Amino acid sequence: MLPIIRAAPRMLSDNGTMRPPLAGTPERKSAVCVQSGRQRCRTRRSFADGCLRWDPARVKMGGAGCQEGPMTPQDLSDIYNGYIDCLNTQDWGRLGEFVHDDVEHNENRIGLPGYRDMLEGDFRAIPDLRFNIGLIVSQPPCIAARLHFDCTPIGSLFDLPVDGKRVRFDENVFYRFTGGKIRQVWSIIDKAAITAQIRDGNGGATG
Amino acid sequence: MLPIIRAAPRMLSDNGTMRPPLAGTPERKSAVCVQSGRQRCRTRRSFADGCLRWDPARVKMGGAGCQEGPMTPQDLSDIYNGYIDCLNTQDWGRLGEFVHDDVEHNENRIGLPGYRDMLEGDFRAIPDLRFNIGLIVSQPPCIAARLHFDCTPIGSLFDLPVDGKRVRFDENVFYRFTGGKIRQVWSIIDKAAITAQIRDGNGGATG
Repeated sequence: MLPIIRAAPRMLSDNGTMRPPLAGTPERKSAVCVQSGRQRCRTRRSFADGCLRWDPARVKMGGAGCQEGPMTPQDLSDIYNGYIDCLNTQDWGRLGEFVHDDVEHNENRIGLPGYRDMLEGDFRAIPDLRFNIGLIVSQPPCIAARLHFDCTPIGSLFDLPVDGKRVRFDENVFYRFTGGKIRQVWSIIDKAAITAQIRDGNGGATG
Repeated sequence: MLPIIRAAPRMLSDNGTMRPPLAGTPERKSAVCVQSGRQRCRTRRSFADGCLRWDPARVKMGGAGCQEGPMTPQDLSDIYNGYIDCLNTQDWGRLGEFVHDDVEHNENRIGLPGYRDMLEGDFRAIPDLRFNIGLIVSQPPCIAARLHFDCTPIGSLFDLPVDGKRVRFDENVFYRFTGGKIRQVWSIIDKAAITAQIRDGNGGATG
């Protein structure tokens, strides 16, 4: 069990650099960070409290445990891996740690509740759904990921009659983060590959 | 007119770091770099000769004009912008400066000639084709880009009867570079958006 560290919270600006909180904000004295195995902070402001770059050396010395400086590509990749873990474990109570309240998906401002509804609907349509990261390209404040799916949707998927067939397809998706949370998503799914597999009945891999 | 600089060529390893050429290779004495407005090197090995990080200060001092060190996200973005310029000007004679001889597209090894054929076919099908960069995410040796198209294809496009209608759509695409050139491409085009625009006849923007 790692020690609980009380740290002066630091907010992230949109480009991932850290800036001190406004004087007198209620977060100044109330933020409590607990280092997890994934360098994740469990506070009511979650990743926005500046503990993205946890420094074990400073923890040992009784310091704040937080480094100042811009978010690195690895920091953002760590957050993204945490987000994908959250989806694959369907741990919807934690979704707000990764997704902004005002999230937009393909230019539609669906907000966190709409985003959760979308994901829960995906798992209802595809009981064996699993998000597999094929490639991550990280340049704060953005991440691009190529995700691979190998699954057996029930009924229809994207208006295509899959009906329990095994299909394999990919998604190329971009995310822009604000304050350490996903604020905008631009996704394209390779629906043509699913159509081809249903037509050919081969369940082959997509390109 | 900028001076012609003779520089000992340095090859890029797959992760973008520079390494000296093998002793005795014919490139050792023959590389000649000319700095262009786009920090581009015109040699027979093009970007692979280590001048990705052109240093004007060293040019003035009569130095090699090349910095050593890992390729930065900006270096790779500069190359990518040069590649997009090459496509939009249909300057096919320069395509080999940006695209590897053994390039793969969606897991198909089509090589540079096949890649050029594909692009030339795109411009025949879409005379007003223009590649517009919406978003770049750069983390050497990879780049991800969201490209936007607003065009009027003649005949069919992706087996869809567009027939001169204006359509707007996006492509989310990943590239992996080797030696400063595009070696692998994973592209997904939002064909569903085109289908919707043909069906609705609205030529609306895609999401």
